[in-house]
Amino acid sequence: MAKLLALSLSLCFLLFSSCFALREQSQQNECQLERLDALEPDNRIESEGGLIETWNPNNRQFRCASVALSRATLQRNALRRPYYSNAPQEIYIQQGNGYFGMVFPSCPETFEEPQQSEQGEGGRYRDSHQKVNRFREGDIIAVPTGIVFWMYNDQDTPVIAISLTDIGSSNNQLDQMPRRFYLAGNQEQEFLRYQHQQGGKEEQDNDGNNIFSGFKRDFLEDALNVNRHIVDRLQGRNEDEEKGAIVKVKGGLSIITPPERQARHPRGSRQEEDEDEDEKEERQPSHHKSRRGEDEDDKEKRHSQKGESRRHGDNGLEETVCTAKLRLNIGSSSSPDIYNPQAGRIKTVTSLDLPVLRWLKLSAEHGSLRKNAMFVPHYNLNANSILYALKGRARLQVVNCNGNTVFDEELEAGRALTVPQNYAVAAKSLSDRFTYVAFKTNDRAGIARLAGTSSVINDMPVDVVAATFNLERNEARQLKSNNPFKFLVPPRESQKRASA
Amino acid sequence: MAKLLALSLSLCFLLFSSCFALREQSQQNECQLERLDALEPDNRIESEGGLIETWNPNNRQFRCASVALSRATLQRNALRRPYYSNAPQEIYIQQGNGYFGMVFPSCPETFEEPQQSEQGEGGRYRDSHQKVNRFREGDIIAVPTGIVFWMYNDQDTPVIAISLTDIGSSNNQLDQMPRRFYLAGNQEQEFLRYQHQQGGKEEQDNDGNNIFSGFKRDFLEDALNVNRHIVDRLQGRNEDEEKGAIVKVKGGLSIITPPERQARHPRGSRQEEDEDEDEKEERQPSHHKSRRGEDEDDKEKRHSQKGESRRHGDNGLEETVCTAKLRLNIGSSSSPDIYNPQAGRIKTVTSLDLPVLRWLKLSAEHGSLRKNAMFVPHYNLNANSILYALKGRARLQVVNCNGNTVFDEELEAGRALTVPQNYAVAAKSLSDRFTYVAFKTNDRAGIARLAGTSSVINDMPVDVVAATFNLERNEARQLKSNNPFKFLVPPRESQKRASA
Amino acid sequence: MAKLLALSLSLCFLLFSSCFALREQSQQNECQLERLDALEPDNRIESEGGLIETWNPNNRQFRCASVALSRATLQRNALRRPYYSNAPQEIYIQQGNGYFGMVFPSCPETFEEPQQSEQGEGGRYRDSHQKVNRFREGDIIAVPTGIVFWMYNDQDTPVIAISLTDIGSSNNQLDQMPRRFYLAGNQEQEFLRYQHQQGGKEEQDNDGNNIFSGFKRDFLEDALNVNRHIVDRLQGRNEDEEKGAIVKVKGGLSIITPPERQARHPRGSRQEEDEDEDEKEERQPSHHKSRRGEDEDDKEKRHSQKGESRRHGDNGLEETVCTAKLRLNIGSSSSPDIYNPQAGRIKTVTSLDLPVLRWLKLSAEHGSLRKNAMFVPHYNLNANSILYALKGRARLQVVNCNGNTVFDEELEAGRALTVPQNYAVAAKSLSDRFTYVAFKTNDRAGIARLAGTSSVINDMPVDVVAATFNLERNEARQLKSNNPFKFLVPPRESQKRASA
Repeated sequence: MAKLLALSLSLCFLLFSSCFALREQSQQNECQLERLDALEPDNRIESEGGLIETWNPNNRQFRCASVALSRATLQRNALRRPYYSNAPQEIYIQQGNGYFGMVFPSCPETFEEPQQSEQGEGGRYRDSHQKVNRFREGDIIAVPTGIVFWMYNDQDTPVIAISLTDIGSSNNQLDQMPRRFYLAGNQEQEFLRYQHQQGGKEEQDNDGNNIFSGFKRDFLEDALNVNRHIVDRLQGRNEDEEKGAIVKVKGGLSIITPPERQARHPRGSRQEEDEDEDEKEERQPSHHKSRRGEDEDDKEKRHSQKGESRRHGDNGLEETVCTAKLRLNIGSSSSPDIYNPQAGRIKTVTSLDLPVLRWLKLSAEHGSLRKNAMFVPHYNLNANSILYALKGRARLQVVNCNGNTVFDEELEAGRALTVPQNYAVAAKSLSDRFTYVAFKTNDRAGIARLAGTSSVINDMPVDVVAATFNLERNEARQLKSNNPFKFLVPPRESQKRASA
Repeated sequence: MAKLLALSLSLCFLLFSSCFALREQSQQNECQLERLDALEPDNRIESEGGLIETWNPNNRQFRCASVALSRATLQRNALRRPYYSNAPQEIYIQQGNGYFGMVFPSCPETFEEPQQSEQGEGGRYRDSHQKVNRFREGDIIAVPTGIVFWMYNDQDTPVIAISLTDIGSSNNQLDQMPRRFYLAGNQEQEFLRYQHQQGGKEEQDNDGNNIFSGFKRDFLEDALNVNRHIVDRLQGRNEDEEKGAIVKVKGGLSIITPPERQARHPRGSRQEEDEDEDEKEERQPSHHKSRRGEDEDDKEKRHSQKGESRRHGDNGLEETVCTAKLRLNIGSSSSPDIYNPQAGRIKTVTSLDLPVLRWLKLSAEHGSLRKNAMFVPHYNLNANSILYALKGRARLQVVNCNGNTVFDEELEAGRALTVPQNYAVAAKSLSDRFTYVAFKTNDRAGIARLAGTSSVINDMPVDVVAATFNLERNEARQLKSNNPFKFLVPPRESQKRASA
Repeated sequence: MAKLLALSLSLCFLLFSSCFALREQSQQNECQLERLDALEPDNRIESEGGLIETWNPNNRQFRCASVALSRATLQRNALRRPYYSNAPQEIYIQQGNGYFGMVFPSCPETFEEPQQSEQGEGGRYRDSHQKVNRFREGDIIAVPTGIVFWMYNDQDTPVIAISLTDIGSSNNQLDQMPRRFYLAGNQEQEFLRYQHQQGGKEEQDNDGNNIFSGFKRDFLEDALNVNRHIVDRLQGRNEDEEKGAIVKVKGGLSIITPPERQARHPRGSRQEEDEDEDEKEERQPSHHKSRRGEDEDDKEKRHSQKGESRRHGDNGLEETVCTAKLRLNIGSSSSPDIYNPQAGRIKTVTSLDLPVLRWLKLSAEHGSLRKNAMFVPHYNLNANSILYALKGRARLQVVNCNGNTVFDEELEAGRALTVPQNYAVAAKSLSDRFTYVAFKTNDRAGIARLAGTSSVINDMPVDVVAATFNLERNEARQLKSNNPFKFLVPPRESQKRASA
């Protein structure tokens, strides 16, 4: 009985509480948008190893949604230097493969170099660090507020990463500006220029722009017990500002990772299986339904290695956060949630798939539409949605509460469009494959469809539909049942072909 | 042990977490109110089948509480056309009976017409839709953010519904303006005129004002697979704006409902039992204590019917949200929580009574005071309260943190007064029956009483009371114990009569 | 299975959900702070029994953190009159001992005078009231929003209490001004003067400034059933404003408390054991590991007494809130969480130690640093921190996201400094004992360290560190491992001595 009660309470918690996102509202009238625009990045900061492009977060549609958007490109052997933000981030990997790391305070260092490496002074010493993760094209990476994050491209293909920072999140206790806190370098944080516009004023010096550079040398010497040379490097003193947030690593990084992993991943081969493999490694065995027998031995081995390396300095509570899964693949190679070979595919990630998103209060959706296929008119129940076009182009229409068309244009690859909560939106692909990612400001974002099976029209009594729309009952019946599709509508031609 | 821990954690969650409402604060100094007013609606929009009256949400006391108030009147056979809002709504049925529906995306259609009806083209086809609910006078209806809602009056008595929209809710990710998104018609959404005042500007056309009207025809034809005529109707094109949000249904709606239901409800008869019956149908059998034997068979039958109709397309998770109870009667005919025949009665609804309110973060209270009876001075611990007078009139006094009287006037039927969080308030009825409903912006709104048994004075040591108020201990004792009533104080005369 | 699931869900809830504080963000650009200041109180209100000093809550660093700070001093036999606030408060007892009470609406009166006291009219009557708590130096007291609070000094040493009011809390549904609602007296609430500056205007009269004074006499006479004299006292009419919020109690208060308690506490003796004793009394026996045998009998006795006195008028749900622990000692005499005899000690209180803090969304930290010892550079992950120096002085450096030093000065006893979320901070003590308390706006506030063992640098792969900071691997290794300390770094001299 007690079990059942506890269970039902927890379920009730699951179902209800995550339907509201704990976030900041926009200022008065910030969302009285009569016109939306498909925006390109308006600033570009080159770095030694790549570039960061940003969208102006003061743009009204971003301010309505309280988000900031940026895009980072990393060349081969480029490292995005560690930084943290005042708000949670969702990063979508548009292209490429590589490594990323996050540092969770007070979590144990679970990756250790083997004992047998030489340990001479100045030679290779036995390193240990927190888990390093592999990412690949199509991944969503969840970066919590204040958590140090870095990423690295070890492949030839440039890595392109789209990042949404949810500055309206209740995790952000500062004001409504996105902030990057860099651990290293002398580069300006990428959103600073937009703060300038807001009246703020910062003097620029050559003494570094990272969080170490503001401390006095003696403080750091004492705190770190290192010499002045190292402190100077730490503070980014006299470092060329052009070096920037993304640096080139000569000879590449050598990172401790399980060998079978490295063998499997080169250049994105066998990606379809990657997702399963991740689940195997990162979820509880009891929650996992194994589909392949061949790897069971490897899995066992990895698990026990992991178990051993963790045995020092950890405890039960830490374990749960410290080993939380931080990424999930929703790209074209993942198994879709919605699929119609003539229309396209959609995959979503919510806090039910990736529990860390409950903390971030964010979710995402990846979609791919065939030429002339449509996503039926629908609206986001409980979230703002930031649509970023990855490939191809589509015609989108967005309608506000006054019935006005606030957007009726093409959205082409590389541009972003904000669809505010409750605004109606529909899309028709103009390319063979229009592909997009939508970042949503709720970890259990839901949509309501305005057409098709199980749409809001479909779910009302036929008499209500008839009276509502001033139709004959027969017409109302057509309205309820003529479209047999739920989400994605194939182009007319293929419908005819299929039914022929 | 694990059971107990889980249980206690869940309880702790229940008790603590719902005490804070997850909502928006007002802007700086918005609540520095030196004067409150008992407000009437200041705008009135006539429709074919009724009218909608609104209070200006930019009024300072509504802005302090971040709410919007409106009142809809539906004549016989009038349908309030489906719409959804950017914030949760609590609706109180001041008068009348009827049906309402809400559409929960991805919930199954659980009401189906029987097989034996004729199915000829153009004739009556076998309809199915989501649950339709009956409402009656005294009901609180909870409408979550973004959920499509409609209501219908099938009786002669006009339906009067007071609606509070909590735009400060964290469910609202847009700005602080109430918005209605209509599925149909050509009428302006009722709060738009107040946005105009705020500087926004919308052009008016005759192409419809609903969320379909902003889409291009070809989009809708493709998405719905219907002809142009139906699309025109959908978009409200050329529809007379005067038709409005509430339309007349010629001949009335025929809605699928259980037959025993219809037999029981006409013109509000047997209302007292209605509440029990609702509970019987909508709660878990194990939580329900049946008080009547006569209906047990009916209940059984209904339960199994329901079970069958749900068996297609549902799953465990959906079930819980899809069948959530959405209304509760707190009117004068319901069983009160606080009752004194000489003073009056009070009934509250919180998320403990109606769990969906946990999601909306709203609760409500219905009170009825006899002539010269008082509600003792008290304050709302954790909520703003919007008092709407239903019948009669009372003298109310409201005091702010500086000890100033910010309201000392009569509140008469049809007027609304905001009592901000922590402001002290007391009322004395001037009518035989002063009746009110109070909407509260917290799903577990609590009050602290400043007089009477179990008041804050009563709960302090007598010495602390004496020192605090500069009284002799004997006087402090009187202050603690002279009033034997907890909430409602009968008029002096009846007190004397009772003790005589 | 169900048990495990429920447990894991609850744990997941514990771990994730409390990491985000449900609170208000600051206005745009409120946190673009280029300079912080160590602030002293800027206003001082003398009372009959003590004084209240306040910091201007409109100061930009307090507005960024959405908090208000004040300091109350109570002389012997002084009573801080009961009041409540529109936001949760955390109070740190810098000095002294005494009693405090809070009144939880609808909780039973669990402290009762024994039957045998004389009950004649005008004589001593049998009083009963809610629990009264003892506090002592080093205590954190948690005061929820809207809960009536009073405190009393029964010792010779003046009581000094620092109070942080979290006006950004989602518990506050009014605007961003701190408000005190006094139950008694004629004094102005202490933050009113700052509202004046904001443009508000209040007329001052001599009719009292408390929440009773705004009611008309007849209302109160009816509601309380007392004579006009008592009502006048209640309303603070003609009371000298100088009497104020803290009044002198002639002859002292006599308060019902368990006798062993009184015997144990005079003048703070045996304080070290006090904490254990509290736990014993207030926690579940099963969670408690008893360390002393001598008091077991007393404990038994007290428990059964308590059980008896509570048996009337309570229920299962009330019990949990009504007996919640409201204070915890984190002072120098408590057992520290972090300790290094050469460097200092730190103790924190979070919602894991004191569950009521989950409701307030606040936590605190008490630290003590020896001369020249450092707290390593670190930042607050998910909270703003308001540092108040209790004793001695230290040099603090604070760095913002642009790498600028926003503070590099001494912080001396009596001054407060806001360290915004994610800003880096480090401290070096300049006194033999620099002691501080830090109030944090998150009930599970976490920090990330930038130096030392298990710091963010330490937890990254050595190659990433080398590439990030442009160092040789050998230097990166030094950076990772040269400082063997985690939090507190002893002065260089003592390090050498220790290793010698």
